[in-house]
Amino acid sequence: MAARLQGPRGRFIALEGGEGTGKSTQTRLLADALTARGIEVETTREPGGTPGAEAIRDLLLAPPGEGWAVEAEALLFAAARADHVARLIRPSLDAGRWVVCDRFVDSSRAYQGGAGRLGDEAIRALHAFGSAGLRPDLTVLLDVGEAQVVRRLAARDGEASDAIGGRGEDYHRAVAATFRSLADADPEGFAVVAGEGEPQDVHERVIAALEPFLAQESR
Amino acid sequence: MAARLQGPRGRFIALEGGEGTGKSTQTRLLADALTARGIEVETTREPGGTPGAEAIRDLLLAPPGEGWAVEAEALLFAAARADHVARLIRPSLDAGRWVVCDRFVDSSRAYQGGAGRLGDEAIRALHAFGSAGLRPDLTVLLDVGEAQVVRRLAARDGEASDAIGGRGEDYHRAVAATFRSLADADPEGFAVVAGEGEPQDVHERVIAALEPFLAQESR
Repeated sequence: MAARLQGPRGRFIALEGGEGTGKSTQTRLLADALTARGIEVETTREPGGTPGAEAIRDLLLAPPGEGWAVEAEALLFAAARADHVARLIRPSLDAGRWVVCDRFVDSSRAYQGGAGRLGDEAIRALHAFGSAGLRPDLTVLLDVGEAQVVRRLAARDGEASDAIGGRGEDYHRAVAATFRSLADADPEGFAVVAGEGEPQDVHERVIAALEPFLAQESR
Repeated sequence: MAARLQGPRGRFIALEGGEGTGKSTQTRLLADALTARGIEVETTREPGGTPGAEAIRDLLLAPPGEGWAVEAEALLFAAARADHVARLIRPSLDAGRWVVCDRFVDSSRAYQGGAGRLGDEAIRALHAFGSAGLRPDLTVLLDVGEAQVVRRLAARDGEASDAIGGRGEDYHRAVAATFRSLADADPEGFAVVAGEGEPQDVHERVIAALEPFLAQESR
């Protein structure tokens, strides 16, 4: 605790992956485990996390018109993220708290950049403009393999889904492929964790991926 | 009419200026005058003009949180504009209709770029990304002089105002100054029209500024 009282920046951990990969569950389990170790944690999500960003989330997931063109969608995600970073993530990190976030900029890179074909450079430029390019200390990619992605999309059939989750199989295959290529290109910034199996088993893999940061914390 | 039936692109006219310069009135008078000449006209406004963009307008003028940081504000304007251009402005122009728009990208350049200090390059980059950099055929800048800007802001005191119109005198002075410098730098793209006097007198000046386009139309 002493180190935190002296004011070092908290750690910023993002959990990423496609629909139904268990991000929300793992976000909660991780936050609980960090709290149990005496770490102050802010748990949040994207799009959303602040009143402004949650209002933008509503527009993204249930568009008032005929659906957003992919450029408008990317701009809305960047706007929500700018508010989230300025009002919640940066202040929390500066106050020494850890931030565990269910999705962050790598979702924009995988969805709008990859599956939506805007390209990675455009998404990174929007992020540089809106949020000074803030990167998580670690992005944990929950990877479930293509067969399970397809099974989960099929199992979801008929359920209410939002404007983005409800897109076709090809779109979600492209999301998963882009996530993997982002992780391959940045092995320092990403930890790829197998998302199959019981939540507690996946959680233990997440904790293992975080060990370097936890080791520093307990010093 | 024959030329239009053969499918030429319509003209795109934007009316710009600070708060209370008479843009809405002049937009209406101009649309009426064009209609009276047999020109098909779409009248619209920013932020807004489509269901999606009007929803973003609500977020901009009455922010759900503690107010948008200027980067988030610029991203929201660019998102609204992307929807407006894709769903209404481009299809109307492509169908041969004229579009008369109360504010367009030059408002973002003057407000967020100039008064908000993001700079012109950043605003133009967002516009290039979101709306392929679409420019009006002519931007009519209603210029009322600084003394009148200050009088109008003072007269408005105590009235309900939105999150942007309600900003301080320095902000609105910077908006007016940026509009003038944008017009100075692009005399082909802008017509600066004195906004003082009766609406009908201002309207006649607007029509005079449009004569080159009207002359081509009646050929």
